[in-house]
Amino acid sequence: MPNPTAAMLVIGDEILSGRTRDANMHFLAGALTGHGISLQEVRIVMDDHAAIVAALNALRAGFDHVFTSGGIGPTHDDITADAVAAAFAVPIDVRDDARAILAERCERVGIDLNEARLRMARIPQGATLIDNPVSGAPGFRIGNVYVMAGVPNIFQAMVASVLPTLTGGAPLLSQSLRVNRAEGEIAGPLRDLAAEFDDLSFGSYPFVRDGAYGANIVVRGSDGARLDAAMVRLQALFPGAIR
Amino acid sequence: MPNPTAAMLVIGDEILSGRTRDANMHFLAGALTGHGISLQEVRIVMDDHAAIVAALNALRAGFDHVFTSGGIGPTHDDITADAVAAAFAVPIDVRDDARAILAERCERVGIDLNEARLRMARIPQGATLIDNPVSGAPGFRIGNVYVMAGVPNIFQAMVASVLPTLTGGAPLLSQSLRVNRAEGEIAGPLRDLAAEFDDLSFGSYPFVRDGAYGANIVVRGSDGARLDAAMVRLQALFPGAIR
Repeated sequence: MPNPTAAMLVIGDEILSGRTRDANMHFLAGALTGHGISLQEVRIVMDDHAAIVAALNALRAGFDHVFTSGGIGPTHDDITADAVAAAFAVPIDVRDDARAILAERCERVGIDLNEARLRMARIPQGATLIDNPVSGAPGFRIGNVYVMAGVPNIFQAMVASVLPTLTGGAPLLSQSLRVNRAEGEIAGPLRDLAAEFDDLSFGSYPFVRDGAYGANIVVRGSDGARLDAAMVRLQALFPGAIR
Repeated sequence: MPNPTAAMLVIGDEILSGRTRDANMHFLAGALTGHGISLQEVRIVMDDHAAIVAALNALRAGFDHVFTSGGIGPTHDDITADAVAAAFAVPIDVRDDARAILAERCERVGIDLNEARLRMARIPQGATLIDNPVSGAPGFRIGNVYVMAGVPNIFQAMVASVLPTLTGGAPLLSQSLRVNRAEGEIAGPLRDLAAEFDDLSFGSYPFVRDGAYGANIVVRGSDGARLDAAMVRLQALFPGAIR
C-alpha cells in the first residue's frame, strides 16, 4: 500500500514579505514523515480570499490530507475560516460549541468575550473542532482539510491532537551518507545504483564547506533491509564517506 | 502603478521530508520586498517532472516573475531544466555557451568535464544564462522564469545578478509596533483604523512571551508619509506600545 499523501497551505503575508521565517512547515514535514504520511506539496499564499480558496480547492482535490496554518485569530486580517467555508461552499457562522469553549476560557482567565474574540467561534457548517490546549480558540476539520493556527506552539499542539486520528503508512525511513567529493564526481555511479534500487529514492544534496565540495546522499524508502543493503553498496562505492 | 508581482517555486524532496529547512525563500522574500516586487505565492514541490511542470505553468501565467530554486545540479535527481523545457514546450540539449563556461571552469580547477557535469550545460532553447560566480554552472532565464540553484550561497549570488535587471516598483515600506495586549483586545480598534487607512495593509501577528499575550502590528505600503500618519494613530490607540 502506498503511503497516504498530504499537502500544506500556509496563509500569511508576513512570510511572503520576508518579515517572518516560517517554522510550521518544517515541523509538520517532520511530524508527517514520522507518521508515514508523505508531504508532497506546500503552498504559501497571501491573506487574500480568492488566493486561499483557489489553493485550497486545488490541494484538497490532489492529496489525501491538507493542513493549513494561519489566519484563524480575532483580527480583521484573519480570513481563513471564511475562505475555507467558501471553498467548500458551505455557510459559516458563530457555532454554539465553539462559543462555549471560548466563553469558558474567557471567564476562567477573566477577559471579555467581545465581538473580536467571537469571530474565532465562526466555524463552517459540517466541520468538527480541533482542540487548542494553549489558548482555547479551536481549529477545525472539514472534509480532508485541517485548519490550524499559525502561532507555532498552538500549531504544534493542534498537530499533536490531529495526527493520532490519521491512518499512517509504513514509516518513511531514511539514511544518509556524507561524501567529501564534488557531486560531479559521484553522479555517474550514484545514478546507476539508484536505477538498481528503484524501490528506493536517492537524493543528493551538495554543500561547500571550507572551500571544499561535498554532498549528502539521502536514501529513502519504507523497507529497512533494502535501505541497509543500499547503504552497504554506497559505502563501497565511496570509501571514506561518513555515515 | 501597482508593484510587479512574483512567485517562487522551490524544488526539493529534502524540504518536504523535513530533512532540510529552506533558506532561499526567506532570502528571496526580503530581496524582492527591498526591490519593490511583491512576492505573492510560494510553492514547494517534489523532484517530480509532472509536479514541476504543472506548478511552473500555473505560476508563470499568474505572476509577473517566477523564481525557481533547486534541481539544476549534475545528479540523476536534478530534473528541473528538463521540466522547465517541457513547461515551455521547447527542446533542451547541451548548449555551446554553457558548455564553454563549464569547460573553462573545469580546466581552471583541474577537474574532468565528465558526462554528469555536462548535464549542467543542458539549457532549454531560447533561454539566456544566469551567471554563477560561485561554482560555474549557470542558471537561466526563459520567458518570465528565472531558474536558479538550490545551494543557498549560489542561489543568493544568482539573485544578486538577476535583481538589477528587473524593474522594481516603489519600495514596499513597513513599520511595526509591539503591543503587549491580547489580539482579542486590540482587534476592534485595529479593524476600524485599517478601514480608515485603506491604502495601507495592517497585519497583526500574535505571540506569547513569558505567559503573556501580545501582538506585533505591521503596517505596509509604499507611501512613507501615510505610513507615518498611521503609526501616530496606532500609538495613540495603544499607549505604551513599543515601536
